[in-house]
Amino acid sequence: MHYKVAFIGFGTVGQGLAELLQEKASLLKQKYNLECSVVAISDIQKGSVFQEEGLDLNKILPLAKEGKSLESYSAGQKGWDSLKTIAESNADIIVEATYSNFDTGEPALSHFRKALELGKSVITTNKGPIALAYPELINLAQKKGGSLRFEGTVMSGTPTLSLATEALAGAEINSIEGILNGTTNYILTNMEAGRSYNEVLKEAQELGYAEADPTADVEGWDALGKIVILANVLMGANLKVSGCNRVGITALTQNDIEKAKQEGKRWKLIASARKIDEEIEAGVAPQKLSLDDTLAGISGVTNAVKLTTDTLGQVTMVGPGAGRKETGFSLLSDLLAIHRLRK
Amino acid sequence: MHYKVAFIGFGTVGQGLAELLQEKASLLKQKYNLECSVVAISDIQKGSVFQEEGLDLNKILPLAKEGKSLESYSAGQKGWDSLKTIAESNADIIVEATYSNFDTGEPALSHFRKALELGKSVITTNKGPIALAYPELINLAQKKGGSLRFEGTVMSGTPTLSLATEALAGAEINSIEGILNGTTNYILTNMEAGRSYNEVLKEAQELGYAEADPTADVEGWDALGKIVILANVLMGANLKVSGCNRVGITALTQNDIEKAKQEGKRWKLIASARKIDEEIEAGVAPQKLSLDDTLAGISGVTNAVKLTTDTLGQVTMVGPGAGRKETGFSLLSDLLAIHRLRK
Repeated sequence: MHYKVAFIGFGTVGQGLAELLQEKASLLKQKYNLECSVVAISDIQKGSVFQEEGLDLNKILPLAKEGKSLESYSAGQKGWDSLKTIAESNADIIVEATYSNFDTGEPALSHFRKALELGKSVITTNKGPIALAYPELINLAQKKGGSLRFEGTVMSGTPTLSLATEALAGAEINSIEGILNGTTNYILTNMEAGRSYNEVLKEAQELGYAEADPTADVEGWDALGKIVILANVLMGANLKVSGCNRVGITALTQNDIEKAKQEGKRWKLIASARKIDEEIEAGVAPQKLSLDDTLAGISGVTNAVKLTTDTLGQVTMVGPGAGRKETGFSLLSDLLAIHRLRK
Repeated sequence: MHYKVAFIGFGTVGQGLAELLQEKASLLKQKYNLECSVVAISDIQKGSVFQEEGLDLNKILPLAKEGKSLESYSAGQKGWDSLKTIAESNADIIVEATYSNFDTGEPALSHFRKALELGKSVITTNKGPIALAYPELINLAQKKGGSLRFEGTVMSGTPTLSLATEALAGAEINSIEGILNGTTNYILTNMEAGRSYNEVLKEAQELGYAEADPTADVEGWDALGKIVILANVLMGANLKVSGCNRVGITALTQNDIEKAKQEGKRWKLIASARKIDEEIEAGVAPQKLSLDDTLAGISGVTNAVKLTTDTLGQVTMVGPGAGRKETGFSLLSDLLAIHRLRK
């Protein structure tokens, strides 16, 4: 099967996928009979280019990496905006990798709607539209015959959604607990080793784990977006980020952490969702775990999610939660899932 | 889609699946559009019964649980042996749940061959034939159009194989390490709490975790069978149990365990497979892990497998490795995988 792909947004994650498509082209063909052409890229900063027969990634990727305009590429149609690229290119799969906006979901939400309306498939790492409008979007996809996959919205390439919806098909998920933000877990791990919050935050920023403005991580917004996605997709909830409890790690003191240590416990920022009567509640808050809890053993930037099921009890998956290649891989795994479930 | 299923072997695991098919019938129909009739059961001790239009599980399950002959069921054809049941019943899916034999794979290997030769699909928890003859069997399945799924051969219902072959499709697995035997992990966890090997083994036997003859567990045979399956299926190896290194836990003393504790380490029985040059080596041996290793934190009868991949680094899955319902679920998840990948 041959797929034609258009990238909307071509930053780190989009480039990560493009690199994997190059590196793994022969594996994908031999092992999975999957071939792929990138027919268009539209990026608000890097410009836009469309070439019906497929762009030459050996020429386009260096332009993106060197910060040059994609419009200096030697062939193809230039200057289309994102919506025109979705509608008028011959792509059948849209890779939406613009920034996440949890208030309006835009501009990504309009990209999703346009693509799905046209019966195209969307694969994405963009948390905003999924957290805000999953039921609407999955209905639209089903009605128009496209697919919507978004593995990378939760634990980058660690296949949480695929585990739960495919590998664990037939099991009912009654609750979810996870360490879904690597930055805060890195900070807590290092504070337990005796260092101060400010010192570790600064180091995390230098290492590229934390943003210059760390609010989304340390106040729990990022983890909350992810648990809302998990609750809505895996437990059939219809939650909004704005309606959930959220406590970050900024109120935790060195003293709290020491005290937990003396009790044989450990603070972790836990995102959780559970059924209470027939309602589903989700939220984020620091929790003091005993050391024999699997989640207590997750250190540094690693993420983990623990699913409590009816037939299997607890199943936990541990893996990376961020990274260029890792998140690029989540998109490749979405593409392979579409291919696997269609052929 | 409606499937017709025959059980070859109807002990704990087979009954576990039959119960799930009853309990989850409406979920399977509504959520996955999957319906299932059990048309035949053939068990060397319980007898054999075939009914073309489907047996009544409400009547058959109590007979099995009460230890009565299935041939006292009020309808259907009685007395067929396993091979005749496979060949002459109208089942399209054969549930092979007889005992595992790592020397010859029999009688299960003949059951597999007969079913696959006829283009039927096989779902199984039987480690013997998979550890001994996976390449032959998967080729036969592909040639004749049937499927062969065996999730329950590794970590009962915890979906290790499905994780690796589907959710992680596109990633290359470079090494595998796991705690794949719950009995030995239970013994080591309790020895670390200061109890003696003999005392804990006796308790494990009373709790049903260990067999009366504990050799297969404590000498590492069970874990070795599982890592050979993982290496052959996930890494393309062609290993036999007989050609691999195997050290069990019986030589570990209370003193070894205390010494490790003082070093901030912990003994675990680790099954592993890795590429060395272009060869794949697999084996089982006790290893002293530092406490920040994810596998060091796995206590009691819980199992875990850590996959080291090219694109994602390490991904670990933790879950139950045994149990009536859990292992029955592995067969349900095989059935759903066949359904998902075909429809």
